[in-house]
Amino acid sequence: LASPLPPRPFVYPILDVALLAGRSVGGSVKDLALGGATIVQLRAKAVDDRRYLALAQEARDAARAAGVLFLVNDRPDIACLVGADGVHVGQADLPARCVRALLPEGAIVGVSTHGFEQAVRAASEPVDYVAVGPIFPTRTKARADPVVGLELIRRLRATIRLPLVAIGGITRSNAGAVAEAGADGLAVVSDLLAAGDLVAATAELRAALIATR
Amino acid sequence: LASPLPPRPFVYPILDVALLAGRSVGGSVKDLALGGATIVQLRAKAVDDRRYLALAQEARDAARAAGVLFLVNDRPDIACLVGADGVHVGQADLPARCVRALLPEGAIVGVSTHGFEQAVRAASEPVDYVAVGPIFPTRTKARADPVVGLELIRRLRATIRLPLVAIGGITRSNAGAVAEAGADGLAVVSDLLAAGDLVAATAELRAALIATR
Repeated sequence: LASPLPPRPFVYPILDVALLAGRSVGGSVKDLALGGATIVQLRAKAVDDRRYLALAQEARDAARAAGVLFLVNDRPDIACLVGADGVHVGQADLPARCVRALLPEGAIVGVSTHGFEQAVRAASEPVDYVAVGPIFPTRTKARADPVVGLELIRRLRATIRLPLVAIGGITRSNAGAVAEAGADGLAVVSDLLAAGDLVAATAELRAALIATR
Repeated sequence: LASPLPPRPFVYPILDVALLAGRSVGGSVKDLALGGATIVQLRAKAVDDRRYLALAQEARDAARAAGVLFLVNDRPDIACLVGADGVHVGQADLPARCVRALLPEGAIVGVSTHGFEQAVRAASEPVDYVAVGPIFPTRTKARADPVVGLELIRRLRATIRLPLVAIGGITRSNAGAVAEAGADGLAVVSDLLAAGDLVAATAELRAALIATR
């Protein structure tokens, strides 16, 4: 299967609108692209749907201008409306096959998993990548799942062929170890959004990832 | 325009899953239909998407078996997935034209409004009915909009042709007055769901509505 994902390895910033700290969504997407991101996800857990739609539109426009892939967290309806490249869902969201059914052909569908069996099961669904985590402790999610560690990446790497995205507590400091364990993509939220210089931080993350290959 | 809505006047129960009080969604839909409802809406504000999908599937199955129209609150994606007859959105949800774009042709789209100008504006969008309220004080919504009263129904009745659905604080006791003011549909939540006998309560509401014609 030809994957519509970016070439591996890739940094995969998640733009959580609760952590923008005054940045605009569009400006952040541009900065992430300038730093070397080739795919960006927008996540908005505590805004109403009309606002989420507006933010997704802004992110989509910026992503298109910058030539990066753009995924919407949780919501295939909003992804369709703005013409996003795909949707990322978790275990409590709509099932991947349902999301796939709502999106145009060729759209990217990714799913979050939190353990070996869940990830293997997810890999048998119509998804383009499997995310696994949290790899390390994270404070981004109020109710995070138990930490799974690097060992799970190694086990999954030996088991499933789909692109593996590591998520949860990943920083520029530990990115090399995560990549070495076998992750194709590094999903990062707070280590990038908390940085003063988003372009530089993204470039550092990408350098750490590439250094291991 | 031929409306896909039920014949007017109609009672329009809203099945808020937070107020089921031990009832099943499917059983409630059946009881509402037995009491004379011809259209039912499912509302689930505090459940995750996977649960909402399962509840919507259950409601859709029961509605189809009972021959009542079934609408999903807020979510066109979930409506598509279960094959619902339509979607109802509020002012902070996806805009009606976006919802319409995501649904199959012929689907019902309704919108909540809270004042004269908002209702008139909504009536110019691609919607099948305009809901207006809260007509009376209501405790169903944690943050309800200001009460609009019966006078607004009279004004809107004289202004817009689309079916008017009254919502907010409507009970079997005041249903007649609301219908007399010009409402085509009576959306009712707590007065039905708090009743011991859902079939009887729905039939009483319908009787109060019909008595005014």
